[in-house]
Amino acid sequence: MADDKMDKIVSLAKRRGFIFADSEIYGGLNGFWDFGPLGVELKNNIKKAWWKAIVQSRDDVAGIDSSIIHNPRTWEASGHISNFSDPMVDCHVCKQRFRADHLAEEQGIEVSEILIKGKCPTCGSKDFTAPKAFNLMFQTHVGPVADDASVAYLRPETCQGIFINFDNVRQSARLKLPFGIAQIGKAFRNEVNPRNFIFRSREFEQMELEWFCEPPQFASSKKPDEWHAYWKEERMNWHLAMGLKKENVRFRDHEKKELAHYAAAATDVEYNFPFGFKELEGIANRTDFDLKQHSEFSGKDMRYFDEQAKEKYFPYVIEPSLGVDRMLLALLCDAYAEDEDGGESRVVLRFAPQVAPVKAAIFPLIKKPELMAISEQITQSLKQDMVVFYDETGSIGRRYRRMDEAGTPYCITVDFDTLDDQAVTIRDRDSLKQERIKIEEVKAYLLEKTR
Amino acid sequence: MADDKMDKIVSLAKRRGFIFADSEIYGGLNGFWDFGPLGVELKNNIKKAWWKAIVQSRDDVAGIDSSIIHNPRTWEASGHISNFSDPMVDCHVCKQRFRADHLAEEQGIEVSEILIKGKCPTCGSKDFTAPKAFNLMFQTHVGPVADDASVAYLRPETCQGIFINFDNVRQSARLKLPFGIAQIGKAFRNEVNPRNFIFRSREFEQMELEWFCEPPQFASSKKPDEWHAYWKEERMNWHLAMGLKKENVRFRDHEKKELAHYAAAATDVEYNFPFGFKELEGIANRTDFDLKQHSEFSGKDMRYFDEQAKEKYFPYVIEPSLGVDRMLLALLCDAYAEDEDGGESRVVLRFAPQVAPVKAAIFPLIKKPELMAISEQITQSLKQDMVVFYDETGSIGRRYRRMDEAGTPYCITVDFDTLDDQAVTIRDRDSLKQERIKIEEVKAYLLEKTR
Repeated sequence: MADDKMDKIVSLAKRRGFIFADSEIYGGLNGFWDFGPLGVELKNNIKKAWWKAIVQSRDDVAGIDSSIIHNPRTWEASGHISNFSDPMVDCHVCKQRFRADHLAEEQGIEVSEILIKGKCPTCGSKDFTAPKAFNLMFQTHVGPVADDASVAYLRPETCQGIFINFDNVRQSARLKLPFGIAQIGKAFRNEVNPRNFIFRSREFEQMELEWFCEPPQFASSKKPDEWHAYWKEERMNWHLAMGLKKENVRFRDHEKKELAHYAAAATDVEYNFPFGFKELEGIANRTDFDLKQHSEFSGKDMRYFDEQAKEKYFPYVIEPSLGVDRMLLALLCDAYAEDEDGGESRVVLRFAPQVAPVKAAIFPLIKKPELMAISEQITQSLKQDMVVFYDETGSIGRRYRRMDEAGTPYCITVDFDTLDDQAVTIRDRDSLKQERIKIEEVKAYLLEKTR
Repeated sequence: MADDKMDKIVSLAKRRGFIFADSEIYGGLNGFWDFGPLGVELKNNIKKAWWKAIVQSRDDVAGIDSSIIHNPRTWEASGHISNFSDPMVDCHVCKQRFRADHLAEEQGIEVSEILIKGKCPTCGSKDFTAPKAFNLMFQTHVGPVADDASVAYLRPETCQGIFINFDNVRQSARLKLPFGIAQIGKAFRNEVNPRNFIFRSREFEQMELEWFCEPPQFASSKKPDEWHAYWKEERMNWHLAMGLKKENVRFRDHEKKELAHYAAAATDVEYNFPFGFKELEGIANRTDFDLKQHSEFSGKDMRYFDEQAKEKYFPYVIEPSLGVDRMLLALLCDAYAEDEDGGESRVVLRFAPQVAPVKAAIFPLIKKPELMAISEQITQSLKQDMVVFYDETGSIGRRYRRMDEAGTPYCITVDFDTLDDQAVTIRDRDSLKQERIKIEEVKAYLLEKTR
């Protein structure tokens, strides 16, 4: 049942141009995906909504856009070079490589027992190498010489680009605590087993906010754990405003033993994907670990001077971190429905209007030049302000079906009455109700409903 | 003089948070740049304007967003693995590496003469290796094993992600010739000598349109060279609409010998940077080379079936290709000015309002609670629809100077009269004129002026 739903979503996503396997004509590349015409609009709407909520509409958050490749000292300071790895074992016989923890779990043994009890899932032999750390960062070389001195990495997270720019941003934007720095951008992890469609891929996009606040001992208003609670609430409200159903979203607080060594607390926002409740967003209290590390590794004093306390200290950091691709997948899963329209079965994506890739479709009732001309005029006018789609092909019912599948909330039909009353019929995707509206009022109506 | 202007722009860009050297705290990384709070808004405005002109407002262009890493067969087919390289020589004595063509040009000799006449610019010795091709693609490995079979590349251009998705996009979006596929995204080139600030960097962002049209022999409307002319005009109009001064933008048609082997024609849109007229955008006629190559290398027939001609053929491609970073630099250079406001000298960025990172600033005349409260209300209301900035610190003159430097077109001052007349003063950055406007009309006024 769950697999069935996932299969349907994957198939719809390809057929309608949301998501394609990257390099499909060459047999694909495991863990890489491309977004088609509907997918890119959906993705852009997600990013726009996040940026508006986190950056544009607030006084206390500045945005940045840092590069994907940083000076590799960044990853020494962050701990990724020494710690960002999975344990791997190789089968001596068939040379296949496996994640030691996954293999152990599947075979009901401990990682330490693989050499004694482990069995190769591919060839059945019992001859493994000892587990070895495999770093998940993609490595490359910058400059004309490929040697140890030129090694660089594709960032596995966007937040370090924020930490290394902390002073530049704080000074140029004249920020005072508490304040945030946010960015949206690609990140890369060489996952051993990419899986669950776009949920765990090797190239993905993150939306991260680093919220800098006073450490507990200097807190003049909220303490870090209160900011953590504040951001949990803010983020949950955002997810609901994006249209995710309340019953499909929940918090999961990490237990102490799950926490990264630098974190004081972490909470996942989990979404009920067809493959179960899984992490959609992570909201962590990173303490003052990151700025301290970068100060130490760079030799630059990145402490903040608190004018009121007359003290220098490293701010604490609360980090809400969300994957664009996971959000997109959650929205697709949440929106997917099968029901009926006038006795005809249909597949419909019930995206919230502000999220929908296409806001409205415009149809001439039939292919008559006078109806087509008016439809084209309406289309051109609307295109200045939103994404709309003109369609003259097939029966009206068929055109509705296409738009239902694309998640388009409104369909506008120009009929023969339009020639007399200068009005059109607007059909609502969800209620299926049809309203008659003057052409001159259509744009304002749609802007009001879809913003 | 030109250097002087460039230096001033680089310094302003850092000080005001447009552009920082990436990883500056670690001594930077040559060829990598980060965009600060003003830079990211400017960049987003450029991308939004391009997407609106190329995708949203047209019926015949679909957008996509493909991954940065493709199956490496993509780069065999495109020719990048065999051809995308610079010739390099190493000094045997000091081990330094140089671009052979640059070295030869600097020393007034031919590349073929380097072994005989070339002199190392670093140590002065005359002992070079033979020139060797150095591929400009960044290389990495995908998957748990780093061997020849797992080699992959960071894309050096975004257009190949369009070609390999040609059939998926065409089918899912039901497109018929002529039509375009567009995308915006990061690309990477391991330039030997990154230079001219963000003009030639190793990580950059492209905005590319691939316009597919009928080959000359099947042209029912425009032929490929007519589409090339059409896109030259469209793109030049766009640059002027973005505010670039007419005298600073020009076309340069490539001579036959400059053309890539697959291209039938190419024209640069050049901008008059402080370091001279240089390529801003390239508009090329790529013929049917790309789809043919990918068909051959993938074994998939990517020909288009022309229903009217009842023939299958490879469409021709016209490609307008623009760098986001170059456009941003051109806008910065074009906008930069020094003049006077009321006898006081100022630095001002005269961005067109739709391009400006911040659309308006809101000031209480002085720090009185009643003025601050109204200013905050106006700020919060405007923030729902645009990027605005609230500032209460320093004299009004000083606050104007800050906003002039940030390129903010409008400054709104709340004064004591506001308490009586519910109106504010709006000051125009360029004309320096001040208008009195009702608070309730401010948003509409700004939306009208800045969209």
